Amino acid sequence: MSDESRNSDAYARAGVDIAAGNEAVARYKQVLGAWRHPDQLDAIGGFGGVFRMPGGGDRALVASADGVGTKILIAAELQRYDGVGRDLVNHCVNDILVVNASPLFFLDYFAVGKLDPAVAAAVVQGCADACRAHNCALLGGETAEMPGLYAPGHFDLAGTIVGVVDVKALPKPESLQAGDAIVGLPAVGLHTNGYSLARALLARDEWTKPFGDGTYADALLAQHPSYYDAVRAIQNVAHVKTMAHITGGGLLENVPRTLPPGFKAVFEAARWDVPPIMRELVERGKLSYDEKYKTLNMGVGYTLVVPLADAEKAVAATPGARVIGWIEHRAENEPQVVIHEARS
Amino acid sequence: MSDESRNSDAYARAGVDIAAGNEAVARYKQVLGAWRHPDQLDAIGGFGGVFRMPGGGDRALVASADGVGTKILIAAELQRYDGVGRDLVNHCVNDILVVNASPLFFLDYFAVGKLDPAVAAAVVQGCADACRAHNCALLGGETAEMPGLYAPGHFDLAGTIVGVVDVKALPKPESLQAGDAIVGLPAVGLHTNGYSLARALLARDEWTKPFGDGTYADALLAQHPSYYDAVRAIQNVAHVKTMAHITGGGLLENVPRTLPPGFKAVFEAARWDVPPIMRELVERGKLSYDEKYKTLNMGVGYTLVVPLADAEKAVAATPGARVIGWIEHRAENEPQVVIHEARS
Repeated sequence: MSDESRNSDAYARAGVDIAAGNEAVARYKQVLGAWRHPDQLDAIGGFGGVFRMPGGGDRALVASADGVGTKILIAAELQRYDGVGRDLVNHCVNDILVVNASPLFFLDYFAVGKLDPAVAAAVVQGCADACRAHNCALLGGETAEMPGLYAPGHFDLAGTIVGVVDVKALPKPESLQAGDAIVGLPAVGLHTNGYSLARALLARDEWTKPFGDGTYADALLAQHPSYYDAVRAIQNVAHVKTMAHITGGGLLENVPRTLPPGFKAVFEAARWDVPPIMRELVERGKLSYDEKYKTLNMGVGYTLVVPLADAEKAVAATPGARVIGWIEHRAENEPQVVIHEARS
Repeated sequence: MSDESRNSDAYARAGVDIAAGNEAVARYKQVLGAWRHPDQLDAIGGFGGVFRMPGGGDRALVASADGVGTKILIAAELQRYDGVGRDLVNHCVNDILVVNASPLFFLDYFAVGKLDPAVAAAVVQGCADACRAHNCALLGGETAEMPGLYAPGHFDLAGTIVGVVDVKALPKPESLQAGDAIVGLPAVGLHTNGYSLARALLARDEWTKPFGDGTYADALLAQHPSYYDAVRAIQNVAHVKTMAHITGGGLLENVPRTLPPGFKAVFEAARWDVPPIMRELVERGKLSYDEKYKTLNMGVGYTLVVPLADAEKAVAATPGARVIGWIEHRAENEPQVVIHEARS
């Protein structure tokens, strides 16, 4: 199971307990290890669960559940409700895209202390818009009014996506070679991770102050993009071996999820741009290397591993794509991800 | 979308706003009406969404999202965590069973203010147990630690189930005839609905007091049963035309969801038992007819419509099943559900 708490010291400072998150994940593995459905396939990287379609020949269903984290608290506070639905659907689309799946349908879960129909409709409208953009049915959902659980004006939003993939098209981490290029797709902001930290470093009364071309709030609520079209465009011209969606855990914890044993990913931070809001958070929090690259995406939203020979075609296929690193052999005592930071 | 708030005056007294719930549902219909995926099929009764399986011939996927409502607050308060996962999965299994679907896989969403790995594992263990009992994969999930959204010790739990059904086996409401029998399967308690009302009528300090063979807490937390085996046993011996899962909205709002125009369901309350905890709530709250039968299941957890000729075989097929009513023609100005209460 993915886990927002799979994160760093910076999160601990913001009230999120990494050790507890890791222990929960370990316990889940125990629970889930006790029995496994025979149609369940190995889920590469764990971004989505893979289930052989009954009677579907060589096809599998891929499902993923997610939330938008405490970005929801900023949206609620500023009464900007339409974006979180799009954030959530795009997040889910990207998660199952990692195993090459195309969305079929999505269901939302919207929970409030006191139901405001206009707010509920705005949130669901956001989900519907992002679903339609992916030719994905918004097949259902649940709206729960739970006085006593949520404070007035607060709400939570989660969702589950189901997609389909040819089993033959599942990524093959074992095909990775030293020298393969890592293509990065740009992040526009925090997406849906790091908000407990952001709220700890940026007080409520600053949110409406000017920042860049807008306000801090604009930067904080910038929409989690879908990488679906970009990835398909790259796949049209390049052989994509594995992919990763850079969510909670950042480059340091998401990229290793699809690396085979004996390999590491080496990044050169000078090869991509860090969004201004993240530079601001890094500075305010004096974030360490681990804090930065585990709590935040630091400007990389999605990574694709391609043969070096395909790298040029890959980056030409979609705006903003860049070669940001490469695959190397790894000795046993080396980290799975190394990020060389620019010296200024 | 189903909606816990689709409920009655009694709920309003407990802080749940019915008018808001209805308006939200109306607005959702508008949002969802703007575009519909071509593979989305009519979802009879709306208990689950139905999606034609890509390349799956005459089979469809059925999905439903749900939560356990504020039963979660009682479980959290009493630190009894293992039951809510089973409640949730069983609720979801029953929802898609209404369109005859068998479970394939389930995903959970568990959100907390402060993550306690032991609590998280207990909740997920409950989900895993109930999944395994239905040969259903627990395919994934999301655990979110969200300081600021949930109070210490509080958590929310929601889930999404996906099942499969032969399109030919979808229920056919148009086959209903006057004189068909309604078979009821017994509810053991509130299941996952009516808890905001229950908490308003039963103060926290009463929960651990003796009630029946145990405590009020035992009665309140009694597990939402799965009706899967019972329904399949009945289908083995009887022609089942339509079914309903009696959740939020009670008999008055769930049974009409699968009635064709021109028909009503008539129940005789003397034909089934009302669980003691519900009798207690009715008495304490002096609940009206509408309040009782919209807020609570009042002892009926699931209904099946069968030809009168099959009724005897149907009730013999599974313990506790009883004929509790019948289908009649309905004039335009008549209600869709009539419950004749026992005169004592």
